[in-house]
Parts: sequence; structure tokens; C-alpha cells
Amino acid sequence: MGELRNLISMKDLDRKQIDHILDVSSKMEDVAIKRSKDLESKIMAVLFFEPSTRTRLSFESAMLRLGGSVLGFAEATTSSAGGKGETLADTIRTVERYADIIVIRHPLDGSARVAAEFSSIPVINAGSGSEEHPTQALLDLYSIKKFKGSIDGLSISLCGDLKYGRTVHSLGMALTNYNVSIKLAAPQMLRMKPAVIEDMRKAGAEVIEVDSVEEAVKDVDVIYMTRIQKERFPDPREYDKVVGRFSITADDAPLMRDDAIVLHPLPRVDELSADLDGLPQARYFDQVYNGVILRMAILKMILG
Amino acid sequence: MGELRNLISMKDLDRKQIDHILDVSSKMEDVAIKRSKDLESKIMAVLFFEPSTRTRLSFESAMLRLGGSVLGFAEATTSSAGGKGETLADTIRTVERYADIIVIRHPLDGSARVAAEFSSIPVINAGSGSEEHPTQALLDLYSIKKFKGSIDGLSISLCGDLKYGRTVHSLGMALTNYNVSIKLAAPQMLRMKPAVIEDMRKAGAEVIEVDSVEEAVKDVDVIYMTRIQKERFPDPREYDKVVGRFSITADDAPLMRDDAIVLHPLPRVDELSADLDGLPQARYFDQVYNGVILRMAILKMILG
Amino acid sequence: MGELRNLISMKDLDRKQIDHILDVSSKMEDVAIKRSKDLESKIMAVLFFEPSTRTRLSFESAMLRLGGSVLGFAEATTSSAGGKGETLADTIRTVERYADIIVIRHPLDGSARVAAEFSSIPVINAGSGSEEHPTQALLDLYSIKKFKGSIDGLSISLCGDLKYGRTVHSLGMALTNYNVSIKLAAPQMLRMKPAVIEDMRKAGAEVIEVDSVEEAVKDVDVIYMTRIQKERFPDPREYDKVVGRFSITADDAPLMRDDAIVLHPLPRVDELSADLDGLPQARYFDQVYNGVILRMAILKMILG
Repeated sequence: MGELRNLISMKDLDRKQIDHILDVSSKMEDVAIKRSKDLESKIMAVLFFEPSTRTRLSFESAMLRLGGSVLGFAEATTSSAGGKGETLADTIRTVERYADIIVIRHPLDGSARVAAEFSSIPVINAGSGSEEHPTQALLDLYSIKKFKGSIDGLSISLCGDLKYGRTVHSLGMALTNYNVSIKLAAPQMLRMKPAVIEDMRKAGAEVIEVDSVEEAVKDVDVIYMTRIQKERFPDPREYDKVVGRFSITADDAPLMRDDAIVLHPLPRVDELSADLDGLPQARYFDQVYNGVILRMAILKMILG
Repeated sequence: MGELRNLISMKDLDRKQIDHILDVSSKMEDVAIKRSKDLESKIMAVLFFEPSTRTRLSFESAMLRLGGSVLGFAEATTSSAGGKGETLADTIRTVERYADIIVIRHPLDGSARVAAEFSSIPVINAGSGSEEHPTQALLDLYSIKKFKGSIDGLSISLCGDLKYGRTVHSLGMALTNYNVSIKLAAPQMLRMKPAVIEDMRKAGAEVIEVDSVEEAVKDVDVIYMTRIQKERFPDPREYDKVVGRFSITADDAPLMRDDAIVLHPLPRVDELSADLDGLPQARYFDQVYNGVILRMAILKMILG
Repeated sequence: MGELRNLISMKDLDRKQIDHILDVSSKMEDVAIKRSKDLESKIMAVLFFEPSTRTRLSFESAMLRLGGSVLGFAEATTSSAGGKGETLADTIRTVERYADIIVIRHPLDGSARVAAEFSSIPVINAGSGSEEHPTQALLDLYSIKKFKGSIDGLSISLCGDLKYGRTVHSLGMALTNYNVSIKLAAPQMLRMKPAVIEDMRKAGAEVIEVDSVEEAVKDVDVIYMTRIQKERFPDPREYDKVVGRFSITADDAPLMRDDAIVLHPLPRVDELSADLDGLPQARYFDQVYNGVILRMAILKMILG
């Protein structure tokens, strides 16, 4: 594989590249604990045109564990970069003079790709529009591999909001690089779009659809739940009904395999009950830590 | 004493522990100037759900002087941690994966304690609700000890808003660990609640009440003034009248002992006149620096 | 020259001091790439009472490249320093206990000077009110010197909003330290005030006024364009007309000398067309990088 220069979309990565990233991540487990000075003199610019504290802090923690430094902004304001009518291209051509790598989050689709085109320094997409959030998909894959040993041969349920959830689209497509069977479990109005399912099947994945949480959690190795956002529902009572039917609780645990794992991109709201947290299957907070590990690997591969 | 794991409330500390913290602080005076790398690879997360620039920068300065790094947020926004309906417990279980210690400020009473219960890494309370701000009480004690040599045997005036001021409650209770006589000086409507006075007396302190600034400043070793907040007064003219009567000015200086010290948690508004600033008794800005020293000691004790 | 203690106004610097700063900047070119630990244990406080992401990040990048650390705030909020009715003097007397140097940006004229008067640590003005932004003027001079070899003997066009633009006033006065001829090119309603022109002439500069972009760009070594702010125009159609007439585009390139340089303090809006960006004369993004270099020099001279 070529060197990693930017990380913009999962679509840019083939299986060999993904596997290499996951391998480097494994090697970062030790470094994350002991810390290193590998990137001691490097500066990471975080340009968060929309706030995402979790993702920002995860990247910052990764950079600091590698000995690097951070500058940037946590949300766009009228007077900040991007304000005063400045184009994204100009903001990038300015910030590239301040740092060694740019981590960008932006509300518009395609913006990270635009940033990478104008930048003379590497760019990592930390979420652009409704489309892409590649480090989330990679950390999900890394979590599956770390907790289950390998990805090939697994059966995986993708649950919750499969219509709008950007995370689950990226993850679904990324999983088609592996030999997996995928179960899609969503409320009727939040089902995955047929075109996306078609893409996953064309890419070689075995995909079935179910419509209950009970069906979702049984006979699978991985249960990947996503947040069901209240604002998608015109009627709040409709939301309550759907979430009520689609949340996983401790009552569903007997249906799960003993060695199944439950993941979630977080923050969770009502779709994962707090009474699950103590179960051995609940791995969503450990998944958070894997995000730091994965991002250390990406930073190390690009800057190291 | 046991090791210091969290710092949530002054109520958790006995005199032996407090004295130990003050001793370690003394040792930090040199380190604060020379700087150190003792916490070089450590990461401090500042989670300020309500802004407090002063307290945040004091903690950050302390951490940087010890060679550590900082990440976090300066105020809660709808999209940040704690937004999107996330519980404090979930935020903590996320952030504990990013850092080695959490410094939390939160508008709700008890929130720092909740954070400590859910956290696998140490938690320092940087102000939670109207109740607790233990590093402020400790830096006040440290200031008294540093400037007066010892705390035992001193007479101390607590002045200003004794009803709502969180600082003065913590300090008052903390002082009961020492052999001190306490003078309470407040405008009628801002007098300390009888129950709190009762607690202080039960804890062994000699407490008297006075109602004028003149009475407050004379015959004492320490004059601890607190901010009188305009928003406590339904009628702004009432505020002006009270503050006018209750502010310390250079005119009051002749009433003070030559070796008395005037402290204030800052920011001050009208209750401490600017014409005091040049007096030898005015030590409130030096007190700010003691906050950095004290917080270095806490960070070093917990993480070092 | 004496040691550099504060940097508040270009008016405080004579030619010898400016030349020395530009010389130190040249020496920083290498350090900026290789990075250093010269300021390893030093802490820079950024107090931005009004946001200016570009200037803030430039200072932070400079400090990080020298191995130092940063704390502070990116914009004033009601609860932050300066909130709760605190005076600027008190904020400074507090923050000076947290850091080794203060970089202040403030909406009010004269505020940086006030800060320096109350501060026991050095203060750098990063823009105060409509008056002063000395590091911008210095980086402009440094850009001219770096790209043209020397400043003496050059002909320089100052273009765009010459009435309100703070940048161009500072630069204009700074240029009078050198043997230059200055061409002022502005729309009628944005012409430089006669008193300012008078000052420049008294200081020894040859100054002429022109009123078209064509006149502005030809027969000069340096074309310094400034942003024309829409909010200066009561009627938006008037703005469109003025900017339309006063923007430099690729069509104007044939009028320029081959070795002319085009500078701009950025962000640019419509007054510099994007089709200029590829021309060899377009140096405004390289100018951004010179800002980092110049600020490294200032920090090194004051703290090193």
C-alpha cells in the first residue's frame, strides 16, 4: 500500500489498507499507556466548524499521548476562520501555515475533501456533513477485531436509525471488505435505504432485514446500536413509541450470545438502557478508548 | 493519612490531611518558578460545564508548570459533552478514556461527587453548584498560613455576603479545624444562616457577629472579604446602599493592624476599593498566585 | 537598543529596533521548521476579548514551535475574565500570576497599553480597538524585506479601505522609517484621512494619491491590498460597485511588474480575485507564514 497522506473517506481505503491501519492500532495499545515523544515537535490543528466534543477530545488525547501539540477552534463563530465571508479554501491555505496536520469537522458534505485538495499538509476528516466520518468507522472495525479476534466470519447486527445515521452507513460499507453476514434492524420509518442495502450486497455482504430488537440481538457476534434522534420524529409521541420498542435493555440479555458484544458510537440516549452497562457484553465505553488508539495510529502513520 | 485519590469536598478532609496539603504546597513554591517535568506525560481534562476562566486558567497553569498537558472545554454548549441528552455519568465514562485526571466545574450541587463515583480516574471538584469549591478553601488556608506563619491562634473576619457566598461557607468550616476566633461581618440581609454558625461553633470555633465594616477590620489578623453580588438584591438602590456601607476603602486602613492581611476570592467589584491595592495589607492578588501553588500540590499528590 | 519588554505600538519602535526585530525574524526561519525548546517551560496567556482566530493561532503556532505552552480564552463571555464587572487592570493582575507573557486582543483603543501598565509580566498587543496591531505591521515589513531583499528604495501601493483599515495606518507609518515612495489607492469614500497623509509626509515619505486599481498596481514593487468591509457601506449596491471597481484580478496582472508582490492582511473577500492566486506575484498566503516567523522572533526576544 502507498503511504497514508490524508484520511477523507472509507471509500479511499481498500481492505489491505484498512488491515494495515488496524495492525498499527494494535501496536499503539502500549504506547497509549506509556506515552511517547514520537510527534514531539508536531502541531495538530483542530478546525471544528461544528462542535463535537467527543471526537475533538479523542483526537487531542491521541496527539498528546504521542507527545504532540494542539491548536485550533472548537466551533465556528462569525468572527473566526470561515467568518467574514472567507472561503474554506482560504481558511485551509492560512491554517496550513500554522500546523503540521489538519483535523477538520464541517457541517457540509464534501468539505473535508475540498480541504485536502487545497492543503499542502495532511488532512483528516473528523466528520463532514451527513456523509463521512472515517475514523469512527475505523474505530468500530478496530473494536470488533480487538474484542472478537477477527472480523471475518462474524455475524453483525446494525440497529437503530439506519436511515439517517452516518456512522452506520460508513461501517456497513466498511464491513463489506470482510466476510460477514449483516442483520439490519430498524423501526419501519428508519429502515436503511434500498440503494444502500443494494450497494452492500453488490460488495459481497450477506444482508438480511429484521424489524424487532429481539431478532436483532440473537444469534449474532456483534450488536451495533445507533442513536435514534428525537428530532427525526415530527411527533414526540411517535419517538417515544419507537424508542420504547427499539431499545436494548437487560431483559434482552438472555437472548444474546454469551460472547456477543454490544457497541454504540455514543452518546446513547434511550436506545441502550443503563441496566445493560454492567453486562459483560456491554463494550461501548471500551470502544471510546479504542477511538484514541485508532487515532494515534492514524496520526503516527501520517506524521511519524 | 491515606493517599489523595479525589478532591470533592472539604468535608472529606481532616486537619491532618489539610496540613499535609499545605505542606506539599510550600514545597511547590520553588517548582512553580523553576517548572518541572514531573507530570510530563499526564493529561488533565478540564470539564467546565459552567465557565470560570479564573479557576480554569489557575488549574491549567498548575498543570503546565508540572509539565503536563490539558484538554477539555471551557463551557457547556448544546452540542458538547453533556449535550444531546447525555447523562453526566456517560460523559465521565467517556472522558476518563481521554485523560489521567478530571477537573470538573458544574452548576449542579453534588455533580462532582457523582462524577467521582463513576470515574475510574481521579476527579477534582472545581466548583459544583452552590456548595463546594474545595481548592478555593484550601488556597485561602494556604494564603493565611503563608502570609501569617500559621493558622492557629489567629482572629479572622469573614465579611460581605455570608448568606449565599459558597467560598465563605467552605472556608468557615475549614477554619474550624484550627484554633481560631471568627468574626462574621455582613449586611443584615446577607448574614450567615444560624445553622451554619451553629455548625462552626459545634466544631469548636469561637464565633461572633458584627454588622459594620469598621468592626470587621479592627483587631483581627485576617480580613476575608467576599463579593456582594448585585443580582441578590431586588432593588438596585438597595445594593448601592449596602455595598456603600460594606466596602473596605483606604479610609479603613488606620483601623487595621499593621500586619493584618486582606484577602478576597476575586473578582472583586465595589466591596474592595481600588485605593486599598497599594497598602501592605492588600494580599488578594498574591492570593491568586497561591491558587496556582495549591493546585500544583493537589495535582502532584494525586498524579505524581 | 534596549531590551524588548512589551510590544504595544509601532510608535514605540524606532528604525533601529524594527530592523533588529526583522533580523531576528530571519534567524527564526530555520527554527520554525526544525522547532526548538528554547521556551520550553514558558507559558503564554492569550486573552482575546474579541475573537480573531487567525491572529490567535499564529501566536500559538509561534509559541508551540519554540517549545512553550499556551492557556487563555478565545473570546470574552459574560462569565469569563472581564465579566462580573471586573476591570481590565484586575484581570491582568490575576492572569499575570498564571503565565510568563500576555498576548491581548481587546475591542477598546488603548487597552493593551493599560494592560502593560498594570502587568508585571510582558504584554504583546494583538490588536486593540481600531488603532494598533503592531505584529501585523511588523510581519508586513518582514514580508516586504524577505520577498524584495530590502525595504529602502521601494515603491509601495497601499490599496483598498484606507479610511478605516487599522492595518494600513500602522503599516503606512511604519514605512516612513524607510526610504520609500507610497501610492495611496482608494475609492473616493474610503480615502485616507488628510491628517494621516500629512503625518506620513512629515515623517519623510513621498506620498501620492490615485483613484483606480490600474494606477495602483503599475510601476510599483509592492501592492498591499486591504479588505473593503461591506458594513462600511449604508447601501449594499454601493459596496458592490466600489468593490467591483477596486478589486484586483488576473486581468490586472499585465500591468504589474514581473517582480512585484501582492500582499493582503487576510481574510480577503472580493477585493482580490481568486484567479490571482496562481500568479508569481501573489504572496499573501506566504505572508501568513511570515506572521508565525515574526511572532516567534518577538516571543524569543522578550522571553528567551
